[in-house]
Amino acid sequence: MKILITGAAGFIGQIVSKALLDDGSHDLILTDVIEPPIPRGVKYPQKAKTIQADLIDSPTSVVTKDLDAAVLLHGVMSSAAEADFDLGYRVNVTATWTLLNNLAKTCPGVRVLYASSEAVYGTPVPKHNVTERDITTPEMSYGCQKVICETLINDYTRRGMINGFSLRFPTISVRPGAPSKAISAFLSGIIREPMNGEECVVPLKDRAWRHWMSSPKTLVHNILVALNFPRDALPTHRRVLNMPGFAVTIQDMLDALEEVGGKDKLAFVREEDVPSLKSTLYSWADDFDNSLALSLGMKQDTSFVNSVKDYIETLEEAK
Amino acid sequence: MKILITGAAGFIGQIVSKALLDDGSHDLILTDVIEPPIPRGVKYPQKAKTIQADLIDSPTSVVTKDLDAAVLLHGVMSSAAEADFDLGYRVNVTATWTLLNNLAKTCPGVRVLYASSEAVYGTPVPKHNVTERDITTPEMSYGCQKVICETLINDYTRRGMINGFSLRFPTISVRPGAPSKAISAFLSGIIREPMNGEECVVPLKDRAWRHWMSSPKTLVHNILVALNFPRDALPTHRRVLNMPGFAVTIQDMLDALEEVGGKDKLAFVREEDVPSLKSTLYSWADDFDNSLALSLGMKQDTSFVNSVKDYIETLEEAK
Repeated sequence: MKILITGAAGFIGQIVSKALLDDGSHDLILTDVIEPPIPRGVKYPQKAKTIQADLIDSPTSVVTKDLDAAVLLHGVMSSAAEADFDLGYRVNVTATWTLLNNLAKTCPGVRVLYASSEAVYGTPVPKHNVTERDITTPEMSYGCQKVICETLINDYTRRGMINGFSLRFPTISVRPGAPSKAISAFLSGIIREPMNGEECVVPLKDRAWRHWMSSPKTLVHNILVALNFPRDALPTHRRVLNMPGFAVTIQDMLDALEEVGGKDKLAFVREEDVPSLKSTLYSWADDFDNSLALSLGMKQDTSFVNSVKDYIETLEEAK
Repeated sequence: MKILITGAAGFIGQIVSKALLDDGSHDLILTDVIEPPIPRGVKYPQKAKTIQADLIDSPTSVVTKDLDAAVLLHGVMSSAAEADFDLGYRVNVTATWTLLNNLAKTCPGVRVLYASSEAVYGTPVPKHNVTERDITTPEMSYGCQKVICETLINDYTRRGMINGFSLRFPTISVRPGAPSKAISAFLSGIIREPMNGEECVVPLKDRAWRHWMSSPKTLVHNILVALNFPRDALPTHRRVLNMPGFAVTIQDMLDALEEVGGKDKLAFVREEDVPSLKSTLYSWADDFDNSLALSLGMKQDTSFVNSVKDYIETLEEAK
């Protein structure tokens, strides 16, 4: 397949690109606001073309007639979109919308995978078995921006202009590198920072607080599955899918940190209540029914310890 | 109150303006893409200022610092938005979004009433007791455009940029004048055209098919109620409200036509199945639970015969 990947310099953009470039049967266009690197150590680096582009100012530079798919991973993360209203709407809505119009015009019917988020949910949200049939009442601009783009994907797909799916990502942990600007960034930091001998602040003192997460490896697997979904995997006007995750508590994460890193690592975790984040953290759904995604061939993690082991392995590979 | 009304040249714009200009305690700015008329026979015509404006090209010309409220009634109707994709998004989304940005900047916290529609619902939709807690899965671009604007209203309100409510209108019948470009236009035509000695085509042969409707008079009453909603009438991030309607079948409408207009009027109604419209007509929800709106002081029609009598009265007044 010939595949465009936006936000390709980001963490998920890089790991999706790596999987596709190791396969060898794909040609990639990697784009971002900075020129994205070709992931190190891939088997077929020559199959990637990198383009620095602003999707609003020059959307046509990254869209070609022969595209089979576009994986839209660009975006301003949750707390950044909350802090800068105009920037959030510009990158998360206007850039996506502009690109969709270009895809519809240049390569109509193209497979589009849109990275949505479980931030589309807000109170009231069922505490158990959240499905695609539950209403989305986001309590952050980020979630609203995702709902707007999901609605565009639905409409453009119903009209045959694209063939899209909106994949609602769980929180991805453990992510390597610098903390993202997501409110959920501490959910990677709680492992990553102690393993580096650095402090991580967990913004709530509630070890029973739990969150719906996926490992990077499982996320990439599931994105590759979605690239090959049959066109009629979902009705043409309802193209949203909650990607599989599994529930992990703060205690589970601390246990995994101790198991993989040793007891001394726990000293690097500082738990403190941050009142300004509390209502947001407790507004998130933490238990999903992923049967639709599983029925379409996606898979689920089963252990956070494995996620931590995967992370350590990634670090080893990068050396 | 000082109130901006967009789409003021349209039928609903005119009847809302009339009610407010008969009251005398309001100053209105009436705007539309053509210069909107001041409704005939109002008590205080001098309280209205009319401005011809394109909301995208010149949004600032209609927004003043001292606005207390904006009633957003502009729009391209359902079948027109389906026929012309770009026009529908331009008028129904981009113009609304541009105006919201201007309102938020010039008169932050202003009361905004956004005319949404029950077209936000699509299959699967519960056949009974549809509420604001049911998911919106529109099957028309018009409905998608409404969902997008509702999402903006929610977000701008949560952030305190405006104080908005999205009012999901039922189908309004009986509307005078030329048929609108809504797919539901025949639901006024079935009375209006026979009363004028003209034919009306009902695009389905199913007298038990029913629809959720409101009379113009009740709609105006309810919009005026919403102008005065307390700020906390709904949670700041969920500002949608299904406006009251009541279920009317094709048979009910024919009975009302006969009762008010006489048996001979029935000959002007031609019922024929239009396959291209059938799935849309059957995808619409037809039974709502309006308890939320009623709890906030809105009211409901109880008889379609009364709607027809209101219509005849409106015609008499206009003479």
